[in-house]
Amino acid sequence: MRQMELGIYLWYYNFMEDNLKLANIRHTLAHLLAQAVKAEHPNAKLTLGPAIDNGFYYDVDFGSTKLSDDDLPKLEKIMRQNLSNWKEFTNKELSPEDALEYFKDNEYKTELINEIRDRDEKITLYTCDGFTDLCRGGHATNPNKEIKMDSFKLDRVAGAYWRGNENNKMLTRIYGLAFSTKDELDSYINQQEEAQKRDHRKLGKELELFTIIEEIGGGLPLFYPNGAIMRREIENFITDVQEKRGFMPIWIPHITKGKLYEISGHLDKYDAMYTPMTIDEGEKYYLKPMNCPHFMMLYKTLPHSYRDLPVRYVSTTTNYRYEKSGELSGLTRVRSLTQDDCHVFCEPTKIHDEIKVMLEMISELYKTFGFEDFYVRISLRDSQNKSNYLGNDDVWDRAENALREIVKSTGWNYKEAEDEAAFYGPKLDFMFKDALGREWQLSTIQLDFNLPEKFELDYTNDAGEKVRPVVIHRAMLGSTERFMGIMIEHFAGKFPTWLSPIQVAIIPVRENHEEESLKIQEELRASGIRCEIYTGNDSLGKRIHKANKFNTPYVIVFGDKEMSSGVLTIESRNGKMEGVSKYEFIEKITKEIKEKTLN
Amino acid sequence: MRQMELGIYLWYYNFMEDNLKLANIRHTLAHLLAQAVKAEHPNAKLTLGPAIDNGFYYDVDFGSTKLSDDDLPKLEKIMRQNLSNWKEFTNKELSPEDALEYFKDNEYKTELINEIRDRDEKITLYTCDGFTDLCRGGHATNPNKEIKMDSFKLDRVAGAYWRGNENNKMLTRIYGLAFSTKDELDSYINQQEEAQKRDHRKLGKELELFTIIEEIGGGLPLFYPNGAIMRREIENFITDVQEKRGFMPIWIPHITKGKLYEISGHLDKYDAMYTPMTIDEGEKYYLKPMNCPHFMMLYKTLPHSYRDLPVRYVSTTTNYRYEKSGELSGLTRVRSLTQDDCHVFCEPTKIHDEIKVMLEMISELYKTFGFEDFYVRISLRDSQNKSNYLGNDDVWDRAENALREIVKSTGWNYKEAEDEAAFYGPKLDFMFKDALGREWQLSTIQLDFNLPEKFELDYTNDAGEKVRPVVIHRAMLGSTERFMGIMIEHFAGKFPTWLSPIQVAIIPVRENHEEESLKIQEELRASGIRCEIYTGNDSLGKRIHKANKFNTPYVIVFGDKEMSSGVLTIESRNGKMEGVSKYEFIEKITKEIKEKTLN
Repeated sequence: MRQMELGIYLWYYNFMEDNLKLANIRHTLAHLLAQAVKAEHPNAKLTLGPAIDNGFYYDVDFGSTKLSDDDLPKLEKIMRQNLSNWKEFTNKELSPEDALEYFKDNEYKTELINEIRDRDEKITLYTCDGFTDLCRGGHATNPNKEIKMDSFKLDRVAGAYWRGNENNKMLTRIYGLAFSTKDELDSYINQQEEAQKRDHRKLGKELELFTIIEEIGGGLPLFYPNGAIMRREIENFITDVQEKRGFMPIWIPHITKGKLYEISGHLDKYDAMYTPMTIDEGEKYYLKPMNCPHFMMLYKTLPHSYRDLPVRYVSTTTNYRYEKSGELSGLTRVRSLTQDDCHVFCEPTKIHDEIKVMLEMISELYKTFGFEDFYVRISLRDSQNKSNYLGNDDVWDRAENALREIVKSTGWNYKEAEDEAAFYGPKLDFMFKDALGREWQLSTIQLDFNLPEKFELDYTNDAGEKVRPVVIHRAMLGSTERFMGIMIEHFAGKFPTWLSPIQVAIIPVRENHEEESLKIQEELRASGIRCEIYTGNDSLGKRIHKANKFNTPYVIVFGDKEMSSGVLTIESRNGKMEGVSKYEFIEKITKEIKEKTLN
Repeated sequence: MRQMELGIYLWYYNFMEDNLKLANIRHTLAHLLAQAVKAEHPNAKLTLGPAIDNGFYYDVDFGSTKLSDDDLPKLEKIMRQNLSNWKEFTNKELSPEDALEYFKDNEYKTELINEIRDRDEKITLYTCDGFTDLCRGGHATNPNKEIKMDSFKLDRVAGAYWRGNENNKMLTRIYGLAFSTKDELDSYINQQEEAQKRDHRKLGKELELFTIIEEIGGGLPLFYPNGAIMRREIENFITDVQEKRGFMPIWIPHITKGKLYEISGHLDKYDAMYTPMTIDEGEKYYLKPMNCPHFMMLYKTLPHSYRDLPVRYVSTTTNYRYEKSGELSGLTRVRSLTQDDCHVFCEPTKIHDEIKVMLEMISELYKTFGFEDFYVRISLRDSQNKSNYLGNDDVWDRAENALREIVKSTGWNYKEAEDEAAFYGPKLDFMFKDALGREWQLSTIQLDFNLPEKFELDYTNDAGEKVRPVVIHRAMLGSTERFMGIMIEHFAGKFPTWLSPIQVAIIPVRENHEEESLKIQEELRASGIRCEIYTGNDSLGKRIHKANKFNTPYVIVFGDKEMSSGVLTIESRNGKMEGVSKYEFIEKITKEIKEKTLN
């Protein structure tokens, strides 16, 4: 906040005030819930009930009673009935002894009281509407005025170990949602429902994009044709974006001798690597978790002069990293991640130019996918503590200034973050907000003053001396898998035509329409359009349903009318098109695919 | 030979006769060499001297004397001088005792004689021109008439352990080349020289296609941009050939739990697998050496009806197989092999149709690459011993007949090979002869009645019953790496334009020609042509040399004349083109690339 201006400061102050007020309301609602629980289940033992991000919860020991989501409406009704009586909290401080006496039948509160005593803190009880609980405070001042009757809702029941420790007893957690207004609550609920509908794991199955197979392993998705085509479209797009700017593809194997990671230093430091494999000859081989060392070695095999620099190598290749199985999730957290990896080897004076080209490419990527809401985080070294970073001041200053200047010149939102650089160089991270407002890290650009040292890379400068190049790492997608996961949810499975695995479906009404339909399919395919035809014994309705199930952008139902008139009727996401000639349609869709139109 | 007709039999008889005659000549030359060796080095100990494929050799123990290639002309001269005296061999049989006495100073011959005695065979000495050697016979009847003075040549000196055992003494092996005529000898030598020039390991370095890096590992080539572009062109071509016929891409990870290979049975039987990797959770993971089990599992995750069959899945993906380091060679024997793998799941009645489509594709591949000289080996089960093969007679007969019929209908050369099928089904292997007449195995098509059982695959047939599909494996290239190795040698590094990493090089004569040259480059690139421009301080000659070094199909030297006239002068492999307009050139080369012309 050092350089925060007054306007920002006031905004920040109000923001925090509002947040505090809402947190107090949520905490108050946890008390209100506890009161309702005790009214219904006098023997239930209350434990802890805090405010959380979207509301509140209370963990309760119901003994042998099992609570389900069906029990929530009744508890909610009691809460609403009681709320009008919740005018004001009173509180009093108790001695540890009195507190322990007061909660003597509740081993959970007893444990908490003992801990508070051990920490030498005050023990307080808070009471409202005759209901008392052990509490540190932080409530609504006038609950029945501040809490709107329709701005909260009990959400669901879940299991939770006492204090999160699996060796402890399993309690029942009741979750409630709470916001300042009904509108905010509704909008949150809608967003949650929408997120569930868009869940890429659900859509991945429905659209036959990918699957995870127990016998092969968690975090190792396999892609059906629909998903494999989409991967390829995305990766080919990246290839085009790169190669038209002079980036050159290379190919590297997925394994290497340990020697490579000894040189790079990863063998000691990198902990997401799979254990080595051995072969007859006793050599240890590793599955690569990253590509940098392979790129460095390839550069090193050829002599380089300042005349040939920059060398811009790219490779879209799969890496394998160990992630705990509990942390795996669909495509967004995987063990097999395919990176659109790039390493540029350049003169230190050319950092600015190279970063500029990279931002151009990232801009083209985001524009093409309609990713409009993003900001750049510029991660710099700690200006007070430079000794933790490798490389000399001159190169760091030049690099940091280059990053800052170029990002500023784009007009994009950005944040500077001191002491967030890697020890080997400053970096840019791109944070993207999807259609539901969730934040994801995508692209990254990192300067590296370290690997060129480790691998003793050089080039001959214009004075004929051998000097070190700077390395710039860059990934635009991050990983194909993660990008696809985010993209599936962003588009809710309704992809632009160029990305759609099936772009056009043709449905002949009856058998006598099939021959002509096949001809149309052939012509569309000859124009490079992915077109399927749905014939067979199924009813027309079933076949239309099949085309719609895959969100096919264009569906042509071909019957008597189309046969005799020679023009098509086409259902698209933007409505029905009638009386369109085959050639008009091919022209329209070809243009759309070529221009990668968002529709 | 059971069904061999008389014509064929006579041809075969003559062929064997000729071969025998040449073998006798070669063996005789080994004696002639031995005589020359003894004349020059009376203390040298002769050991063994057989005829071989391209001539003969003799292994000699020269004691402390070191022989080099420089010593060969003199020995050769002695051989030629003596040859006129080599009129006829005489021979006599000796008792073991006499033979041992005769060779008492030669421990090698002594060892041989003892073995012959132990086998109860005759011990014979053969003599010609006063030179006698231990020998079983098999010589030219009239050496000085049958052996043409200019049809043999001493080739080189190499080391060889006595009887090939590395625990024995290292001897000196003198190789000689020998054919029936001088023409045959010359043509063999030329072919060897050509093979050396075309060696893909040599060209791979010169053309900056690929490299093998010690710290990463043998058999794990890395591809420079030139090689990576070529890989991609080949793989994209295969993708096109497949997808226009309805084959669908899938994507699979490179690792799997061991469970998958337990089901497939590979874990017990397949010995080229790397040892497993483990992760925190104790599960063992394997790097895949083949793709079949992944394909099977993906098929299994979806329900299938006869209506959706055939399912034709393809994936170009890298496998890892352990090969001994001594057996690795450039791209043709690697540990990382990228297969253009395909598995078709079909009804048993559709085998014929599916194989037909595959042969069409293979034909398109070979035609495109100009691979004209090949034959198909049809590997069938042993008709006398069917019990060694899995699956019932009906399916085998249908499959074998289908293979036979379709191959016959293509008009291609083929051989039937009984008892060469895999236990799980019959197969077709494609044997290709390259420009130097060397034979390589490329494509393969294999029927599989086994994996569908192991994985319990099914589909619903038209009677509503769950039945097993047939699986057809297929690879066209075999592996991208191997195919590239063969292709580099076949084309001797002068690739057709569509495959050339750099298709056009522009060389501005002076600085004032650079701007216009850049414009031409831009236009060529916009038309999808890979075009480099060579500016800089180097002389015109040096820059032209650089373009030629990479065998660039078209080189444009752009100077005053071109600038003022607006037309181009282009050097190509087929000669110089003068006065060509930019647009004519773009049209010509675009057509050539699109049609994949062999030039």
